[in-house]
Amino acid sequence: MSMAYELYYWSGIQGRGEFVRLALEDAGADYRDMNREEGDSAAAKLMAQSETPSFAPPFLKDGEIVVGQTAAILFYLGPRIGLAAKEERWRLWTHQIQLTIADLVVEAHDVHHPLGPGRYYEDQKDEAKLRAEEFRAQRMPKFLDWFETVLARNPAGPAHLVGAVVSYADLSLFQAVEGLAYAFPQRMGVLLGNYPKVAALHDAVAERPRIAGYLASDRRLKFSTDGIFRHYEELDARD
Amino acid sequence: MSMAYELYYWSGIQGRGEFVRLALEDAGADYRDMNREEGDSAAAKLMAQSETPSFAPPFLKDGEIVVGQTAAILFYLGPRIGLAAKEERWRLWTHQIQLTIADLVVEAHDVHHPLGPGRYYEDQKDEAKLRAEEFRAQRMPKFLDWFETVLARNPAGPAHLVGAVVSYADLSLFQAVEGLAYAFPQRMGVLLGNYPKVAALHDAVAERPRIAGYLASDRRLKFSTDGIFRHYEELDARD
Repeated sequence: MSMAYELYYWSGIQGRGEFVRLALEDAGADYRDMNREEGDSAAAKLMAQSETPSFAPPFLKDGEIVVGQTAAILFYLGPRIGLAAKEERWRLWTHQIQLTIADLVVEAHDVHHPLGPGRYYEDQKDEAKLRAEEFRAQRMPKFLDWFETVLARNPAGPAHLVGAVVSYADLSLFQAVEGLAYAFPQRMGVLLGNYPKVAALHDAVAERPRIAGYLASDRRLKFSTDGIFRHYEELDARD
Repeated sequence: MSMAYELYYWSGIQGRGEFVRLALEDAGADYRDMNREEGDSAAAKLMAQSETPSFAPPFLKDGEIVVGQTAAILFYLGPRIGLAAKEERWRLWTHQIQLTIADLVVEAHDVHHPLGPGRYYEDQKDEAKLRAEEFRAQRMPKFLDWFETVLARNPAGPAHLVGAVVSYADLSLFQAVEGLAYAFPQRMGVLLGNYPKVAALHDAVAERPRIAGYLASDRRLKFSTDGIFRHYEELDARD
């Protein structure tokens, strides 16, 4: 009898846990969202005595194994749930793309917390405006350009980031585009037209039956200004 | 005949490439530092047509395989050069520690560039002072505390982060401590005494014969205010 995967992540936000949820949902995997079932102390309880204590959620428990760090969780899960190639070279490339999405996620967070996670947004609003200007003008195009290039150079065609079938990296790119479009609707409205392959992949993921079902369910929380991607009107603009 | 590993990273700084260099040096691996040999355009040349183009250096070429993202490079190299366990569970745990060191490295960089990488330090000095305050007071202890906990909970003893022998994560923790001590000598002078296991591991790595030889060689560049860890007097303090 195989046990359900146990996901531990803050119960009130999409956050980094959402990248793992999308993979589990798309695969139709048996999993439990532990903090939602047992409260946010579930994560800390598991880590209190662990020999492999994660620095922060999300982490995933699979029997004896506990893995933390979003990209490492997906690296572990990918081949097990049919969302990554098993051949080392392509498995590593998928992971590398995921790590670059993780870098984008850090920067998207830094936009509203340039002075660090310890101060409220309201206390670093002016600095956030400056950081957002650079993020919109330079960083968003740089990342989107890279994703478009990866799709264009995929020898199996531009429908997927790696090979000819879906991987967790495709699902994560969908989520990154969703997050950016929520946080920066004006900027993404201008930019996304320049990245047709990224836009097409985003739309195709949204139409995958299990993903569409998940997005319409109450398991999918809404984006909010408690999460990583945050919409503050003053941080968005067309340029 | 096995070919030398080819490392591609900016020739003028330690930066993220240094975590890979320390592993290659400690293992006595045959490697070439390509940008130093052929100039900083070497990296861009390799990526110009690649089907797996890395977002940014460092990346490592091993025959047909090219891997980018520091932590992924070490994950790939580790078992091949005797610096990581081969068993999946411990290989993943070593990787997870490395990814957390990578998170610390991002924050150490954000200290001097809170408004983003596009502006000079001199143009974001005031914001850097605020971010440095929080980094010194909250983030440095949080990370050091976690490393100390990992060492304390290692069932094989506190001499190593994972198991009973050295791994690339040990070498990377050495480098992180070196970097923090260079950038924040006053703060680390106060803090490090609270983390005796981290301090002992740092010292033990420095005494490993090949590491000691490397550190004394001209292949080891000096820390500088062009790198990730930067010393600016106004960003350091005892608290």
